[in-house]
Amino acid sequence: MALVDDDTGQVSDMLRTAQDEVAGGIDQLFDRLLAVPADPRKQLYEAMRHAAIAGGKRLRPLLVRAAADLFHVDRSISLRVGAAVEAMHVYSLIHDDLPCMDDDDLRRGKPTVHRAFDEATAVLAGDSLHALAFEWLCDPATHADPFVRAELCSELARAAGPAGMAGGQMMDLMAETSDFDLSTVTRLQQLKTGALIAFSVEAGAILARIPVEGRRPLRGYARDIGLAFQIADDIMDVEGDEELAGKALHKDADAGKATFVTLMGLERARGQARLLVDQAIAHLAGFGEEAALLRAIARYVVERDR
Amino acid sequence: MALVDDDTGQVSDMLRTAQDEVAGGIDQLFDRLLAVPADPRKQLYEAMRHAAIAGGKRLRPLLVRAAADLFHVDRSISLRVGAAVEAMHVYSLIHDDLPCMDDDDLRRGKPTVHRAFDEATAVLAGDSLHALAFEWLCDPATHADPFVRAELCSELARAAGPAGMAGGQMMDLMAETSDFDLSTVTRLQQLKTGALIAFSVEAGAILARIPVEGRRPLRGYARDIGLAFQIADDIMDVEGDEELAGKALHKDADAGKATFVTLMGLERARGQARLLVDQAIAHLAGFGEEAALLRAIARYVVERDR
Repeated sequence: MALVDDDTGQVSDMLRTAQDEVAGGIDQLFDRLLAVPADPRKQLYEAMRHAAIAGGKRLRPLLVRAAADLFHVDRSISLRVGAAVEAMHVYSLIHDDLPCMDDDDLRRGKPTVHRAFDEATAVLAGDSLHALAFEWLCDPATHADPFVRAELCSELARAAGPAGMAGGQMMDLMAETSDFDLSTVTRLQQLKTGALIAFSVEAGAILARIPVEGRRPLRGYARDIGLAFQIADDIMDVEGDEELAGKALHKDADAGKATFVTLMGLERARGQARLLVDQAIAHLAGFGEEAALLRAIARYVVERDR
Repeated sequence: MALVDDDTGQVSDMLRTAQDEVAGGIDQLFDRLLAVPADPRKQLYEAMRHAAIAGGKRLRPLLVRAAADLFHVDRSISLRVGAAVEAMHVYSLIHDDLPCMDDDDLRRGKPTVHRAFDEATAVLAGDSLHALAFEWLCDPATHADPFVRAELCSELARAAGPAGMAGGQMMDLMAETSDFDLSTVTRLQQLKTGALIAFSVEAGAILARIPVEGRRPLRGYARDIGLAFQIADDIMDVEGDEELAGKALHKDADAGKATFVTLMGLERARGQARLLVDQAIAHLAGFGEEAALLRAIARYVVERDR
């Protein structure tokens, strides 16, 4: 992608270390939480494991950890919350890939769930991960304070429902037959991907019982990187490498959908993404070295090639 | 159905009054909570309203209210919890009706969501109601005590996920190509319908902060009526009237699935349902007149014709 062309474009060692740690931890947790039962639900669990284990950038669990680290939250706690958010994300990918939705064959370099298994199993694997996200989040093993558990569940539900991910996906389906302007596309993306990214960041503060007013800088940061992430995705859809991305690209253009790139052009989109990253980092001005990982993630969001 | 052939088979006035009150309250709540927004998510909300408003027996909200009444829980609270459970139930119906699942055209006497709208909208309407169930349950407006909210969310998630409804539906799909025995069919139904019915009853006790030990009679009651409900459903699938039921019947036999009726025969199934109802009512022996509605529901579960 090389949106940033100077040497800050290098993914820092710190980021890579954190990402590897989080990815390893999430895989271990999923492996344990999704143990295959010896009964007729076997295929359901195998489908969940196929979609959830060993895949993706784990951006959302990384954001939970980076934000929670600011407030010295125990890392086993932020990892469990990360697993819940990732389960929610994976469920949305499984359903978005269905034949009646985006009809995709490849995801994270592997066959999509309905291709590897069947459609019914894909619907149920998504539904199961959706429920498990809440089960894990509300488990007293995740956090001892019921107030924290209830607030996490409430915020995650908002981010997943019709005023979040599911609503954004509905708008995305309407985009194929509508003529959306920049503000509508922005709103679509704030729902479809922004809401869960925002939850991931805010969860760090909720875990530390930081009151709503104290979360403003993190909310600003999350809003900006969420949008930058999606602009980068739209640029990747035009310029990216399918093999690196592990999924089909050039789909928006083929579907005639309005995207940040079709509405702004490549150059302005690139500039806007850079601006949003700077703005995201500016929101963290009140933090010191402890926010270095969040800053590195902001840069990574537009530099990634998958 | 006339499983009970003496005059206790009459649905009591008390039951009818409570059912009408709950049904009216649920419709009003849904109407308010699912207000259609003036943006491209319009169709998503219309699909949710199509499936959720003015339909069904509202058995689960009725159970929440009946159990919560035992402990004098404010009825506006038990109604909100009932709306959350019903949203979860409606989501499961929408997904179960999909072409890749049971492929049904009719539900509650109306076209199923994927017939009235389209498949993608049906998937997303289900996903949205799934998330909304948690959002409404975790809302401080539902209950002031975060411990109660967190426990409700945790139990609902368990009832909905792979160890509950979604797992049961997976087993049901496997039933078409497997040769399930009575204990496997019992387990299937305990997951598919029993878990959410059990949650509905237990929610009443959770709302009153009754500790787990104190909930045993209610759990026993819920387990028994859940199974009786499903046996009655299997009998209805053979003997019922499609117009009254508002959905296609005789599907299990056509699919060659093992059911309580194919495994036990009609007469034994009928006897077993009656026995379970008596047993459910026996669990309530420690309660007095305040449990009359729960007792009436237990009888209704096997006497209903839809």
